[in-house]
Amino acid sequence: MRMRKKKWAMPFLQENPDFVLFDPEVNKGQWKSILGKDKLHIEIGCGKGDYFIEMAKREKDDAWLAIEKDYNCAAVAAKKALEDKPENALMIAKDAQDIGAWFAAKEVDFIHLNFSDPWPKSKNSKRRLSHSNFLQQYHKILSDDGQVILKTDNQKFFEFSLIEFTHSGFELVDVWVDFRKEDHPEDAITEYEAKFMALQQPIYRAIFAKVMI
Amino acid sequence: MRMRKKKWAMPFLQENPDFVLFDPEVNKGQWKSILGKDKLHIEIGCGKGDYFIEMAKREKDDAWLAIEKDYNCAAVAAKKALEDKPENALMIAKDAQDIGAWFAAKEVDFIHLNFSDPWPKSKNSKRRLSHSNFLQQYHKILSDDGQVILKTDNQKFFEFSLIEFTHSGFELVDVWVDFRKEDHPEDAITEYEAKFMALQQPIYRAIFAKVMI
Repeated sequence: MRMRKKKWAMPFLQENPDFVLFDPEVNKGQWKSILGKDKLHIEIGCGKGDYFIEMAKREKDDAWLAIEKDYNCAAVAAKKALEDKPENALMIAKDAQDIGAWFAAKEVDFIHLNFSDPWPKSKNSKRRLSHSNFLQQYHKILSDDGQVILKTDNQKFFEFSLIEFTHSGFELVDVWVDFRKEDHPEDAITEYEAKFMALQQPIYRAIFAKVMI
Repeated sequence: MRMRKKKWAMPFLQENPDFVLFDPEVNKGQWKSILGKDKLHIEIGCGKGDYFIEMAKREKDDAWLAIEKDYNCAAVAAKKALEDKPENALMIAKDAQDIGAWFAAKEVDFIHLNFSDPWPKSKNSKRRLSHSNFLQQYHKILSDDGQVILKTDNQKFFEFSLIEFTHSGFELVDVWVDFRKEDHPEDAITEYEAKFMALQQPIYRAIFAKVMI
C-alpha cells in the first residue's frame, strides 16, 4: 500500500516524540518497563494503523508497538492513534530490516504481520517479512513461548511463508485458508481487510510458535 | 463419495484376482519386484480410479498401487483400469487402517491422498487419512526421501492436515492454496476435481517429505 506523499507527515511525526520513535535501539531490553506491561506485541508494517490501534484498545493489559517505515503511512497511523491517547502503545517509524537489534533476546511475546508487502518477484524475496533472514531475527527476540501471527490476502506470499517459517525454527500452531468464513471476534478487521471480504476473497492466516533449535 | 450398491461389484472384483488383491500382506517387501519397477506410488482411497489410472498411464516407469475399501467404488475403478490392461498398476480392495503391515519399512516412495473423506466431526478425527495414527504408519513404510502428496477441496481437512503432518515427522515441501489457478500438467485432474474447478472453488494441495525423527 503506497500512499501519496503528505507534506505534513514528517513534521507531525517529529512533533510527537513521546509516541513516535526513530531510534528504537535505545529502548532495547526496556520496552516492557517503559510501557508498563508484561506482554509485548509488535506489528511490523502497520500501514494506516487500524489493526494495532483497535487491538491495543481491546487488550489494554498488553503493550503494543507498531512499526512502519513509510513516513506517510506512519503519520496517518500516528494521527489516528493519538486521538485516543493510548497508554499501552507506541510507534516506531523505521525500516525493520535490523529489528533484531532493537530488542533484547526473548523480549517480544507476539509478532503480527498483517497484509505485508508480498514482493512477488523472486529477486525481491529477501524483502518479504517472512524471509528466513527476518525469521532468524524474530526467533532471537521472541520469548520461548512467543508466536508470530500472520494474515494476508496474497496466496503466493502465504504459501511462501508456510514453508519458510516451518523450515526456520517455527512450527505451525494453527492455520486458516479462509479465515473470515467464520466469525473471529478475537482479531480486528482492518479497512483494507474488509475490502477483500466484500469481494468474497479468502483471507489466509497462520500462527507459528518458536521452537528450540 | 458414497456410491450406490452394485450387485456386480464383489463378483467382478473376485473374478480379477490378478488385478484386485484382498490380502496385501502377502506381498510385503516384494511389491517392486512383483510390479517390476523401481519406484512405488500408492493412492489411498482411489474412489472411481480416475487419478491413478491416468497417472499410471503417464508414468509408466513407476508402479502404481490403488487402495479402495468401498467395493462398489473399487469395482468401478477396476473395470475402468482393466480396459487398458495396465502392466504397472494393481488395486487393493481393503480398508487401509493397518496399511503399515502391508509394506516393508521404506518400501513406498510416494503416497497420494486425493479428496479424502474429511470426517468433519472431531469425534471421527481418527478416521481422517491425515490423522497422526495414519501418519506414523506412512512414516514407517516411506523411503527416506519419500513424500506424501495431498490434494483436497475441503478447507478444514486441509488445515488439519497441514498441522498434523508438520507435527508428525514430516516437513512441508510445497503448498498451494489455489492449485488450479495455474496450469499443473504434472498432476491429473479427476472428474470429481473438475466439478470444483467449474464452480471456481479452490483446490488445496501440499507435498510433505519424511524427516528423520
